Amino acid sequence: MKNMQEPWERPIGIFDSGVGGLTVVKEIMKLLPFEAIIYFGDTARVPYGTKSKETITRFAMEDAAFLLKKNVKAIVVACNSVSSNSLEYLKSSFDIPIIGVIEPGALYACKKTRNKKIGITGTAATIESGAYEYSIREICPEAVVYSKSCPLFVPLAEEGWIEKESTFFIARDYLQELLDKDIDTLLLGCTHYPILKQVIQKVVGKGIFLIDSAYFTSIALKELLEENNLLRKSTAIIEPLFFLSDIPRRFSEIGERFLGKRIKKISVVDVTKQT
Amino acid sequence: MKNMQEPWERPIGIFDSGVGGLTVVKEIMKLLPFEAIIYFGDTARVPYGTKSKETITRFAMEDAAFLLKKNVKAIVVACNSVSSNSLEYLKSSFDIPIIGVIEPGALYACKKTRNKKIGITGTAATIESGAYEYSIREICPEAVVYSKSCPLFVPLAEEGWIEKESTFFIARDYLQELLDKDIDTLLLGCTHYPILKQVIQKVVGKGIFLIDSAYFTSIALKELLEENNLLRKSTAIIEPLFFLSDIPRRFSEIGERFLGKRIKKISVVDVTKQT
Repeated sequence: MKNMQEPWERPIGIFDSGVGGLTVVKEIMKLLPFEAIIYFGDTARVPYGTKSKETITRFAMEDAAFLLKKNVKAIVVACNSVSSNSLEYLKSSFDIPIIGVIEPGALYACKKTRNKKIGITGTAATIESGAYEYSIREICPEAVVYSKSCPLFVPLAEEGWIEKESTFFIARDYLQELLDKDIDTLLLGCTHYPILKQVIQKVVGKGIFLIDSAYFTSIALKELLEENNLLRKSTAIIEPLFFLSDIPRRFSEIGERFLGKRIKKISVVDVTKQT
Repeated sequence: MKNMQEPWERPIGIFDSGVGGLTVVKEIMKLLPFEAIIYFGDTARVPYGTKSKETITRFAMEDAAFLLKKNVKAIVVACNSVSSNSLEYLKSSFDIPIIGVIEPGALYACKKTRNKKIGITGTAATIESGAYEYSIREICPEAVVYSKSCPLFVPLAEEGWIEKESTFFIARDYLQELLDKDIDTLLLGCTHYPILKQVIQKVVGKGIFLIDSAYFTSIALKELLEENNLLRKSTAIIEPLFFLSDIPRRFSEIGERFLGKRIKKISVVDVTKQT
C-alpha cells in the first residue's frame, strides 16, 4: 500500500478486554475517518474488571504486544480496567504513544460539573484503582469524587437487557448512594456502560450529566497524533481490521450494538501463543 | 507419603472455570473424606459459559493437562459448560477416568420428576450444547425437557446478591417460561446457581423440585473410583490443594461461600505456560 511504511501511514491499534472498546472505535472512526484501525478484543478472557491488577497487567501486555507486531503507530487502551491499573506499565514497556480512557473522561467531567461533586461508576478493578479520583484531583483539586463499582452492568449490557424493569432496579440499587451525595455529573467509567445510558439516565434523573469517555478519548487521540506528527496523510479509506481471541455467542448482535454497524470480517487469534 | 505411588493413593483432580466448582469439592469432601483433592479454578479466564465451544475445549484441555502433571488418578469436570461441550474430547485425550456433572444431574432429575416435565437452566454454552436433553432422553425417553439459559445468574451469585429484590425479578424474568410449561423438576445446570437456590425456589414455588448436581456428582465419583479400584485406602486426612489462575477480588469471601469453609492456602498458576 502506498506510503504504508511512513510512520503516519501505519494503523492505530485499539484494544479492550472484549467488545466494549468498539464504542471507542466508533467515535475514532467518526472523528478520524482516514485512519487505519486494528482492533483486538480479548473475548476469550473477558471480563478483566473482576480480576487482579497483576492478571490485568499480564493480559494487557500480551494484547499490546500483539498490536505492536501489526506495526501500529499508537495504541488506544479502550478499556477502563486496563487504563486504570496498567497504563503506566504499558507506557514504560513500549516505545510508541499510548493513551487510555481515564484522563479524557476525567477532563471532561471536570469541565461539566458545576457543584464539583462527581460520581464515578466502573468495574471493581477500575474503582479500586482510584485512577479516576487521582486524575480528577490533578485537574480540579476542589472536586469531591464519589465512586461505586457496578459489576452487574457489564453482563446486563452484554445480555442486551436495555429496557427491562430488572435493569432499572439494579441501577437504582447501585446508584442511590451516589445520588444521596448530590452529584451533578456521573462518569460512566466502563466502555460497556453507554449501552445502558438510557436506563441510567432514568434512574439518576435529567439533572445529572452523564459522561461517556469514548468521544473524549477520540479527541485526545487526535491531539496525540497531531503532536507526534502521526495523523495519516492519505485520504483513501481503509476498512478496520478486527481480531478477537474468541468468537463469543451472539457476537454479531452484541458487536453491532457497540460499533453501531456490521462487522464484516473478524480473525481469531491466540495472543498467549506469540513467539 | 506412605503408598503415595499406589494408584489409589493418588489425588483426585477437580477443575472448573472459576470458583463454582468448589460446591462440588464440598460434596466430595463430605462423601469421600479420605481422598486427596487437587482443585484448579481458571479464575483468570472465567466465565467459560459465554464463550465458544472451541475456546471452552482449548481451555479445558489446558486445565486437565495441569492436573495430569499433578499425578491425579481421576478428573472431575466440575463445570457444566465444559462437561456439556468438551467431555468426550477430554475423555478421548487422556488415559484416566474422567467424569462431568451432566449425567449425574440428568439421572437424578429423571428419578425425581413425576410428570416427566423437566426444566433445565444453565449458561448459554451449556444450554446451546443440548447435553442435558440428550442425557435425560437416554435415561428417560418419555421425558419432555424445557431449557433456558440464565447468563445473569453467575454474576449475581458472584456479586452475592442473594436476597435482593432485583435478583428475584431477574429470576422471574428467566424462569416464567419454564413455569408456563408445567415443569415439576428444575435442574440447576451451573455450579454457581445453588448459591441462588433460595430465591429460585421462591420464584418457582415449593411444588417444584430443584436439582443441584454437586451431590450426585460426588456419588457418581465414588462409584467410578470403586469400579476402577481407585478408592484411597489410607485414612490419614490430607488437606486439599487449591490452584487458581488469578486471585480475584473478594476471593476469600466468595470462595468461602461456595466451599462452605475457609480456604487455607492457594497457589496461583498460569496453565497456558506449561511446557
